[in-house]
This record gives sequence, structure tokens and C-alpha cells, in this order.
Amino acid sequence: MKTLVVVAHPQIDSSTTQQFFKSATENLNNIDYHVLGKDFNVDSEQQLLLKNDRIIFQFPMYWYSAPGLLKTWLDDVLTSGFVERNQNVFSNKELGLVVTTGSAEKDFQAGGRENFSISEILKPFEALANKTNMKYLTPLVVYQFLYLKPDEQQQLLVDYQQYLSNPHFQHLNGQINWFIEQLQQKITQDDTNDTELETLMNFLKEQQDTLEDLQWNLDLAKKDEDSY
Amino acid sequence: MKTLVVVAHPQIDSSTTQQFFKSATENLNNIDYHVLGKDFNVDSEQQLLLKNDRIIFQFPMYWYSAPGLLKTWLDDVLTSGFVERNQNVFSNKELGLVVTTGSAEKDFQAGGRENFSISEILKPFEALANKTNMKYLTPLVVYQFLYLKPDEQQQLLVDYQQYLSNPHFQHLNGQINWFIEQLQQKITQDDTNDTELETLMNFLKEQQDTLEDLQWNLDLAKKDEDSY
Repeated sequence: MKTLVVVAHPQIDSSTTQQFFKSATENLNNIDYHVLGKDFNVDSEQQLLLKNDRIIFQFPMYWYSAPGLLKTWLDDVLTSGFVERNQNVFSNKELGLVVTTGSAEKDFQAGGRENFSISEILKPFEALANKTNMKYLTPLVVYQFLYLKPDEQQQLLVDYQQYLSNPHFQHLNGQINWFIEQLQQKITQDDTNDTELETLMNFLKEQQDTLEDLQWNLDLAKKDEDSY
Repeated sequence: MKTLVVVAHPQIDSSTTQQFFKSATENLNNIDYHVLGKDFNVDSEQQLLLKNDRIIFQFPMYWYSAPGLLKTWLDDVLTSGFVERNQNVFSNKELGLVVTTGSAEKDFQAGGRENFSISEILKPFEALANKTNMKYLTPLVVYQFLYLKPDEQQQLLVDYQQYLSNPHFQHLNGQINWFIEQLQQKITQDDTNDTELETLMNFLKEQQDTLEDLQWNLDLAKKDEDSY
């Protein structure tokens, strides 16, 4: 799976959050990390869209939407003619969002300070996915990054890496698979006899077997229930 | 009431719809018709916002949102510091939207071609009004302008003029008042003895009296009902 991350941040160099994301991608393969500037070539941007399977828009939320930088890019690059000519290509793609906000998670609900939920606010992007027949992924929303504790940052790092590179990040089994792959890759790359890593990998594989057993038994139990 | 119309259209000169709107404002007073370009001065734009009572964003819907031109303007001009410093000023303002779309009205619903309602799609603007304490006006959405028949265009012209200049455009009585004012203005300006106009004005005033009577009786009937 190839992933395009379209990053739109007007002051990217002074953004701690964006630096965090950038460094999180360094050990990942098949990632096209694409930071937007004011000037771009429509043709080459369209080629980038075509050749990647997962398209991710990464931006800070400004007035409940993407910065003008990304909106202008969308208007100019994702023309309706381009989308229509490539209908079949787009229908095999996924659309994800990595959104950072200065407000807390609890603010985004009826009666809260922001009054509307994230799902409501990001509806235009869901509508875009709907129109282009891309699969809309649950957005990865990072609330108040600067308040995150070290272990929360560590969790975010893994979540972010999976959001970019794990084809099945929404399923537990897919998550374990992804970890095993990452470990295998690390062991191969480093060409070491790191027994600690090998042990961890075997532990994960066992966990996965247990998980598959549980899933099988659960399916069986559910089938029984359905027959009543 | 002073109204600022912030117009954002990347190809405004070739837009029939925008020409229609522009000419509709020619006989109206207290309208600041402000066509956005790529360059603007933040200070003078902020002054424009402060001195007008009704702020209207007028734009074609691109990817379920405003064009990048307007979004960049919003990001740069409506800074959170500026809004906070002028909290009391903003809480007396209204925010309206004049949005044109290439899709039909029936497309904007669950199961329709666009799948989401206009209220859902424009939620980020409602959230903006909510955050700045401006009163959010029901958006004036123009679906497929080029398909409008002459009488529908005529109706749109009046609706649009009222949306810009009528403080109470959402109430029938407010609409009649607005018509009377427009007529009175026309009679005074032209300095004519146009009996036809005078007759029309008197007719409207009578209608208004009838309407007030009806409203009074309705309120009375409702009060009776409530006492059961």
C-alpha cells in the first residue's frame, strides 16, 4: 500500500506537532510525505494522487476546516474532470484526515464550547470522499498536542504510523500484524541477533493465534445464537 | 443596518450568477460589495468587518466548502485575537451565506447524489458564527442558477435583495415592511406622482393591517387553547 500525506500548515517550521509527525514517518516505507507550498504544478500533483492508494490530508483545524492553502490546492488539483476521467482509480483509494486542534476533545459536542462534533465539522471531507467514491477513514484527530504526556505521545506516534501505513489499522488483528511486520523489518534491516526483539515477535505471534482462536469461538457462539 | 458582502469567486468576470447578484445590489443602500482578490490588507479588512452589522459570504460551493480564496481570507483576517478583542462588537452582528451550487436541491439529502443536507455541509460556517457569537442566518442557497426560469430569477432577485438589506427578511411582516420602504424610497427619489406606485404602496399597507389583525386573533385563539 502506498500512502500520500498532503501536509498543509502555513507555519510548518515552527509547529512542534508537524515536526513530531514528520519524524514519525522516517522509519516507514512507501510514504510520500508532501508538504504544500503556495506554488504547485497541477499535473504532477494529479500524478501523485493517482499513484497512491491512501490519500491523507494533514492540517491544523482553522475555522472548522482546512487552511486556505489546502483548500486552494483541492480546488485546483482535484478538478471534477480529473476525478471523472479516473473514476475507477479513485474508487480503490482511501481518504484519511490527520487533524490537529487547539480545543479539547470534550469541547466538540452539543452544549460544549465548540458545540458540534468532529464528525459534523468534517462533513465536507466525508462528502468529498463520497463524491469521489473513496473510502472515508475515521479521522485521526489530535486534540491539544502540547498537553500530551510522554506515554500519550508514544501512543500517538504508533497510532499515526499505523494510520499512514497499516492497511487494516481499525482492526486489532491488523494492528498486531503491523507490529510483527515492523519487527521483522527491523530485525532484517539491522541484521542483528537481537533476542529481545525475536522474543517480542514470537510473543506477538502467539497473541495473534490466541486472538484468532477467540474470534473463531465467538463466531461459532454467534452462529448458535442466530439459529434460535 | 449596514451589510458587508464578501464575494469570493476565482472567475468572477465569467460568472453569470455573480453578475446577476452584482446588478441586484445597484438600487440598494448601505451595502459594501466587496470582491476578494488574492492580495488584501488585513487591517482594512478587519475595519470592514467591524463597521458592518450583517456579514455575508457569497461564493460558489467548491468541494462542499468556500473557495480557497475565501478560506485564506478568513484564516488571515478573522484571527482569534481580533475576534477576542472585539467580542462585544461581533455579538451584535449577523452572519449570512449566499451559496451557489451546480447540483439540484433534491441531491442534498441522505441517499441523494450529494448524500448530505446543506445544513450538514455548511456546519463549519455555523460553528464559526457560534464561536464568534454572531447570529447565523439561514443560508440563501441558489441551486443550478442557469436552469432558473424568468419568474424564478425574479423571485431570487427579491429574495437576494432582502437577504442583504432587510433586517427581518425571515418574517412575512418584515418582508412587507421592506417592500413598503423600497416603494417609498423610489417615490421620493424619482419625485414623481406615479399613482400606480402609490396605489401599490397603499395596497401593501392595507395587507399589512390585515396581517396584523390576523396575527392578533391567532395569538388570542392560541391563548384560549393554552388555558385548557
